[in-house]
Amino acid sequence: MSSLPVAAVDRIIRKGGSWRVSEPAAMALAEILEEEGVKIARKAGEFASHANRRTITDTDIRLAAKHHK
Amino acid sequence: MSSLPVAAVDRIIRKGGSWRVSEPAAMALAEILEEEGVKIARKAGEFASHANRRTITDTDIRLAAKHHK
Repeated sequence: MSSLPVAAVDRIIRKGGSWRVSEPAAMALAEILEEEGVKIARKAGEFASHANRRTITDTDIRLAAKHHK
Repeated sequence: MSSLPVAAVDRIIRKGGSWRVSEPAAMALAEILEEEGVKIARKAGEFASHANRRTITDTDIRLAAKHHK
């Protein structure tokens, strides 16, 4: 079960073109994006920790996304 | 401006550990995940098209995510 609202993910899919989108498709993408998000967040946490902070900032997130995959 | 609710993305970040999360951090991750989502969706659209469909299904999404990056 994803934390991301399926309706929001459905809108993202339809940004890419004039597609119809099955509900399982939106649910699948919501899960995939959530997994990516958790991975990036874990890395961001390591970077915050490395900088002696307990708060994750946008710079941690951007650095983590850059070094992701 | 992201389609993904910042509160939902904030929850995803805090799944990775007991962090405080700055609001710009959640906004940055929402944007990053949305961009990823659009890229995956475009690819999924090509796969649906290739299969002579106008509806994107979960199999298109999963194939697109697999071939992403």
